[in-house]
Amino acid sequence: MTNATRIHCPTLRNRIMSASEAAALIPAGANVGMSGFTGAGYPKAVPQALAEHIQAQHAQGDNYRINIWTGASTAPELDGALAEADGIELRLPYQSDPTCRQKINEGQMEYIDIHLSHVAQHAWFGFFGKLDIALIEVAGITEDGKLIPSSSVGNNKTWIEQADKVILEVNYGQSAGLEGMHDVYYGTALPPNRRPIQILQPDDRIGENYLRCPPEKIIAVVETNAPDRNSCFSEPDEISQRIAHHLLDFFEHEVKKGRLPENLLPLQSGVGNIANAVLAGLEEGPFENLTSYTEVLQDGMLSLLRSGKLRMASATAFSLSPEANQELADNIDFYRSRIILRPQEISNHPEVIRRLGVIAMNGMIEADIYGNVNSTHIMGTRMMNGIGGSGDFARNGYLSVFMTPSTAKGGAISAIVPMVSHVDHTEHDVQVIVTEQGLADLRGLSPKQRAKTIIENCAHPDYRPRLLDYFERACASGRGMHTPHLIGEALSWHQRYEETGQM
Amino acid sequence: MTNATRIHCPTLRNRIMSASEAAALIPAGANVGMSGFTGAGYPKAVPQALAEHIQAQHAQGDNYRINIWTGASTAPELDGALAEADGIELRLPYQSDPTCRQKINEGQMEYIDIHLSHVAQHAWFGFFGKLDIALIEVAGITEDGKLIPSSSVGNNKTWIEQADKVILEVNYGQSAGLEGMHDVYYGTALPPNRRPIQILQPDDRIGENYLRCPPEKIIAVVETNAPDRNSCFSEPDEISQRIAHHLLDFFEHEVKKGRLPENLLPLQSGVGNIANAVLAGLEEGPFENLTSYTEVLQDGMLSLLRSGKLRMASATAFSLSPEANQELADNIDFYRSRIILRPQEISNHPEVIRRLGVIAMNGMIEADIYGNVNSTHIMGTRMMNGIGGSGDFARNGYLSVFMTPSTAKGGAISAIVPMVSHVDHTEHDVQVIVTEQGLADLRGLSPKQRAKTIIENCAHPDYRPRLLDYFERACASGRGMHTPHLIGEALSWHQRYEETGQM
Repeated sequence: MTNATRIHCPTLRNRIMSASEAAALIPAGANVGMSGFTGAGYPKAVPQALAEHIQAQHAQGDNYRINIWTGASTAPELDGALAEADGIELRLPYQSDPTCRQKINEGQMEYIDIHLSHVAQHAWFGFFGKLDIALIEVAGITEDGKLIPSSSVGNNKTWIEQADKVILEVNYGQSAGLEGMHDVYYGTALPPNRRPIQILQPDDRIGENYLRCPPEKIIAVVETNAPDRNSCFSEPDEISQRIAHHLLDFFEHEVKKGRLPENLLPLQSGVGNIANAVLAGLEEGPFENLTSYTEVLQDGMLSLLRSGKLRMASATAFSLSPEANQELADNIDFYRSRIILRPQEISNHPEVIRRLGVIAMNGMIEADIYGNVNSTHIMGTRMMNGIGGSGDFARNGYLSVFMTPSTAKGGAISAIVPMVSHVDHTEHDVQVIVTEQGLADLRGLSPKQRAKTIIENCAHPDYRPRLLDYFERACASGRGMHTPHLIGEALSWHQRYEETGQM
Repeated sequence: MTNATRIHCPTLRNRIMSASEAAALIPAGANVGMSGFTGAGYPKAVPQALAEHIQAQHAQGDNYRINIWTGASTAPELDGALAEADGIELRLPYQSDPTCRQKINEGQMEYIDIHLSHVAQHAWFGFFGKLDIALIEVAGITEDGKLIPSSSVGNNKTWIEQADKVILEVNYGQSAGLEGMHDVYYGTALPPNRRPIQILQPDDRIGENYLRCPPEKIIAVVETNAPDRNSCFSEPDEISQRIAHHLLDFFEHEVKKGRLPENLLPLQSGVGNIANAVLAGLEEGPFENLTSYTEVLQDGMLSLLRSGKLRMASATAFSLSPEANQELADNIDFYRSRIILRPQEISNHPEVIRRLGVIAMNGMIEADIYGNVNSTHIMGTRMMNGIGGSGDFARNGYLSVFMTPSTAKGGAISAIVPMVSHVDHTEHDVQVIVTEQGLADLRGLSPKQRAKTIIENCAHPDYRPRLLDYFERACASGRGMHTPHLIGEALSWHQRYEETGQM
């Protein structure tokens, strides 16, 4: 393909083979740890070849499936292809693929949804069983066999160390200039031998630029040249802009009150339309010298770095549009000096998030009047994507913000409900809720005070009277008055939606 | 009373006054930070005098109430007396007093239930408003004005630093030999200036033996001589012993599998009958050289220290029977060399709990078939006590265990239900559930696999067929198959109990 120009280690040049040949080395039933985080840095050729291989085996009547562990979500070439082929028995810790999601919700695929900071350590603890194979995309291999990480780090260090055998994809489509951007920490240990993670500010580098891997573990090297799942960027809509506006006003208020420094605190931001609107708002806002300690860098983060509003950003992966990806590649030296990509056990580490005092900003599906948040389950049963890192940041950050439009499906669904149909974040971990209607500051409020604030500030006017009615009847019910509920009616809004298509 | 033999600082001797005089210094509407954690080290005289003062004011038609922040639960002399007098407007972050609980559940007292590790930092962040007065029990005052902490540390450091004015109770009923047992860490800071907490094993001391307080802040010193709320110890019943037996078997199994060291990992244990049964089981078990990194030291911990099974214990408070308290006082030198009492922001610090790999063992009210846990709310609305530190340990520990008898109220209530009526710990934070029926090891299981394991291993046989029936009908419902639920029926067991007294 390219005369192996990115594979400088002679031993490993000898292991170059086709994706099909490499896929054939993955046995049925294997636990396979793959790279990939928010559609960045996932293997692109071997999973597709494996899907074909599996389909051929299925056609012969063989039950051939594997268990896939990743960093987070991947892309059609991985989750999509293997789910389509019915090749995934078990998936962890996060996904966002339409086919994968469908199989999970039809009960044809087991899925374990895990706090992203827990994944590596639970693998090391042996909680998931033995990892057989690691399948990792890299941007190149140095002469002495060190691996240049790709556009995400995720759990790659752990998968390489835990697996018996390693298959590498060397992707020439990734910028060679990524070399030097990563910080792979090799100081983790099992308890009781753990030491402090010495990150005192988001800028601190505590590891190495490369992934280590003993060459003898590497059973195949496959060359690829393909882009990440770079999704188009859409301009924030009006709803998102209003949400962002409420939040940025709140930040200004907190700075005035002396509760936040003028350059705020390190920002964590989920991905998507609302997150992009917040980042766009920061671009125009008064805050300078910002930092980010987050999971994922989307387009808005690059813009903030470009404009100088953001001093630096720490994450574990990119999630860019094709245009932003080109901007990154064209100015890789500029970005390399301002971006650090770390393993997700470090980007999401409770110790570091709490020490830095991260401002956590995450999306949600729904919140209830007491401030419990559902991030994952549509109507309490259907998995959307997964909890991801939201729990790591919400529990440990300085401030935990959850955002959503106040309605969905053209108003048929209220995002503020009497009781959430599934809980991912309890009221203990939710300090601020924002919709386009307004912002509810829940700090220092009891549950009943929270209910009034959330209904008045965040619920859509079409649903506000019914929420108030529910709350008042619950208060008058003669049951417990700490968190008043009509337990027989609490989930009736979801039930009604399932039956009539309207809450 | 005693010629001020425990008040060696001349300036502070001049501020000695009666409890009534001190209580009169607390204005209506004040935010008052009081000492006290699990019925240990709370002020015993001033709250009662204040309750009398408030009742007198109420009799005159004055609306006199205060807001009370503590470490955790206190005792009848504090929560009981002030709740009885209708003197508490707002209470945080934990309570377990019958009168207090009644007022909360009747809607006559606002209550904010908070992760115990969050309390100090949220006060520092300014999330609760300004603290006016700190009312702290100490065991004595040194010549240069340093305060010898009492039988709990809790949030005392923070209350003293945050309050404008400080009232001290010097309790001669506390062992003078407590001096030197405490480790008060003065290295905390606000982000972005935080540093690693340098505890690498439970034994590490990183602070000082005393609480600091500028003498000019101290407006009153009151002498007392009274015991803590030392509750009688009851021998573990058969149910608790069976729960403990299942858990200890599991530990042995994990050691054999190489997933736990032979001396386990630092133990965190809630209080109560089941916790005592586990500790009694450890007394007779094969594990040596144990350590504890926990919130509270109950009788069983002292026994384990005495027998040598437990090498040392770190906590923030005692919770002892009168006999164990006498044992502690009689052998204070022995225990002082083996016990460290820390501020609760350190005893419960996510950073430290995760680093040490603590084994978290907590009680609960109910769990659902997917492993979500309710620790606080009876039938979804009535506050029992509070979440306490269970979330700090469950989220961050090496292993998170929740335990309960499989039924309550003579079998009328099943502790395993289709859906919990309130969520304090999501399935992401629950790895092991134990009842007297058996143990469910949920590691590496998807929700549907968890459901089968929990129903089979933990549910009472009287409820098992109905739980299986619910689960099977939910699976057949045509709704989402990731976490199958019949959303209209999910809380019907609680509704039925409210209506008929039987689930």
